[in-house]
Amino acid sequence: MSLEITFLGTGSAFPSPSRGASALVLRREGQCWLFDCGEGTQTQLMRSHLRAARITKIFITHLHGDHFFGLPGLLCTLSLQSSPDASRAPVDIYGPLGLRSFLWRSLELSHSELLFPIAVHELVPTRDQCPAEEFRDFSGLDSSEGLPRGPPGRVVHLDPGEDCYLLVEEEQLVVRAFRLFHRVPSFGFVLEEKPRPGKLDVQKLKDLGVQPGPLYGKLKSGTAVVLENGTTVLPGDVLAAPAPGRKVCVLGDCSGALGAAAERLCRGADVLVHEATLGDAQQERARQHGHSTPRAAAELATRCQAKRLVLTHFSQRYRPAGQPAEPGSDVTELKRQAEAVLGREVTLAEDFMTIEIPLKK
Amino acid sequence: MSLEITFLGTGSAFPSPSRGASALVLRREGQCWLFDCGEGTQTQLMRSHLRAARITKIFITHLHGDHFFGLPGLLCTLSLQSSPDASRAPVDIYGPLGLRSFLWRSLELSHSELLFPIAVHELVPTRDQCPAEEFRDFSGLDSSEGLPRGPPGRVVHLDPGEDCYLLVEEEQLVVRAFRLFHRVPSFGFVLEEKPRPGKLDVQKLKDLGVQPGPLYGKLKSGTAVVLENGTTVLPGDVLAAPAPGRKVCVLGDCSGALGAAAERLCRGADVLVHEATLGDAQQERARQHGHSTPRAAAELATRCQAKRLVLTHFSQRYRPAGQPAEPGSDVTELKRQAEAVLGREVTLAEDFMTIEIPLKK
Repeated sequence: MSLEITFLGTGSAFPSPSRGASALVLRREGQCWLFDCGEGTQTQLMRSHLRAARITKIFITHLHGDHFFGLPGLLCTLSLQSSPDASRAPVDIYGPLGLRSFLWRSLELSHSELLFPIAVHELVPTRDQCPAEEFRDFSGLDSSEGLPRGPPGRVVHLDPGEDCYLLVEEEQLVVRAFRLFHRVPSFGFVLEEKPRPGKLDVQKLKDLGVQPGPLYGKLKSGTAVVLENGTTVLPGDVLAAPAPGRKVCVLGDCSGALGAAAERLCRGADVLVHEATLGDAQQERARQHGHSTPRAAAELATRCQAKRLVLTHFSQRYRPAGQPAEPGSDVTELKRQAEAVLGREVTLAEDFMTIEIPLKK
Repeated sequence: MSLEITFLGTGSAFPSPSRGASALVLRREGQCWLFDCGEGTQTQLMRSHLRAARITKIFITHLHGDHFFGLPGLLCTLSLQSSPDASRAPVDIYGPLGLRSFLWRSLELSHSELLFPIAVHELVPTRDQCPAEEFRDFSGLDSSEGLPRGPPGRVVHLDPGEDCYLLVEEEQLVVRAFRLFHRVPSFGFVLEEKPRPGKLDVQKLKDLGVQPGPLYGKLKSGTAVVLENGTTVLPGDVLAAPAPGRKVCVLGDCSGALGAAAERLCRGADVLVHEATLGDAQQERARQHGHSTPRAAAELATRCQAKRLVLTHFSQRYRPAGQPAEPGSDVTELKRQAEAVLGREVTLAEDFMTIEIPLKK
């Protein structure tokens, strides 16, 4: 079960020839989930080894243009490349309240009729996710127009007990969102695999007299079985310990997290993707714009004991490593700053970099 | 007075690494006017020799995503790069009805407050500009929401007598739009310079006894003057013949023009930019999708006696000239097809190609 992250855009504010606008793909066993979709993401996808047609879910961290202006174009191009298929499952799109209106208007006004279904699930932010004067209430949008509301989808409110949003629950994994503080409401996403059942101990099964067949499946799925001789075999008797799942956390732009959910949900993350727009020397400027420095990213990674910290969303002044840098614009300086806090190696994301996350034993 | 066209995107349907989505810049004496703004145009601008900050007018031919999805991002990036300046003239944006709603929604929902003013002038199409079943009436948009309508701007209706839309009239030039037939209403734009006054014949002025000074200016501006000795000097006596202005025509996607306006307005064009999405062999497919072939483009160029025909908006199957082509996807074949009809050289647009249009004598 492969799991890998590919960065398609690692620049902040706008796309440039050296750093695309925000986008990354989490690929798990061939299925691609896109996190953010800045302008130009479809072209970055074409330049990568990924197949855009494999995208089944899209997550938008926040409604700044460099994180979602590429979405209508990507959907239109995916549609051009597909055939009508009534049985096709919708592409699920998750993002802050307002995303539905943007998408629907963009598709309506561009006369786009997608050949595949989409569902837009909107996360309702809380007012404390941004400065009070910046908050805009998009809950009434499109309601008074007497027009169709566009694609189906859920409106997801914060679970106050858990301080998070449950977005996806499948057999093998769960995706939750948590709240971040930024100039506009922003979210972090945590994909967590459920533990994989341990392997059956075939020798032990033989010794106990369990015949290969349906009983193996029952035990594997965690059900006790009673043999013909009356012996009860418990799954724990014949199964190795379950293998822990992997955890990947992708945070949107932020100057910090709200509440304790980020630290709790990201605990032990195999990969924590965190923005570091500006260097530590510009901490005050970063904070004013709702952004983080390498120090802030490393502090969160330390608190939640993340195994690997990946920095991204660099100011466009930072050229990719290896390219000549102006004084004060050497991106490897950001790496050093984060490593000084974290005490171990930190990864700098670059466009088209792929990080594999191996299965745990 | 320099005048040049630079192509930023010459591909159809979507942007790709080898051909950007539709966009070109007409630069006249340092001022840049952008025609269409597909996704990725801002990045193409960065790759070009042009300065995005010099854009003062934007024209959108039609509301298909590959022609305008790059507009919100471009405006946001221009704003990031500018300083607040209350005296700054607005960037004028011209395009089909519906463009205001798209722009306003995109900017509102992305929390974008531009640091410079914009004005959106919407052209009202006629119902016969597209197949009846494709026509959508966007005239009621946003009217019932009780919300601000966004940026100021005019609603421009067809002048039935002239069969065109007068968009810009300045001291030195006029811009008009005319109607095209496409899957959705589409427009062509004609920029026409007014004739430049001829030069003063200094020797003749001396001979007539006109002293250098204010009288020169009067004569140059076309006013007769009376000398102290009672002689009347007419401008025609001392001015060379006015030099004709230049004319550039940029057509949006189309399978043809509506009425006779295109031919009349484009007559004698110095440059006629026309789409040729597919080769002549696929004429029927092109027509079904509302597109043109090289033959159709050359026929219009012939009828309006255009001096130079430039083909653009090629299907993404056509790689730029010089790159290896699949059988049937050699873009130079499109050039040959147009030349066979026009009887002289035709230019194939490529991303970042610049065409200069010299002053006329």
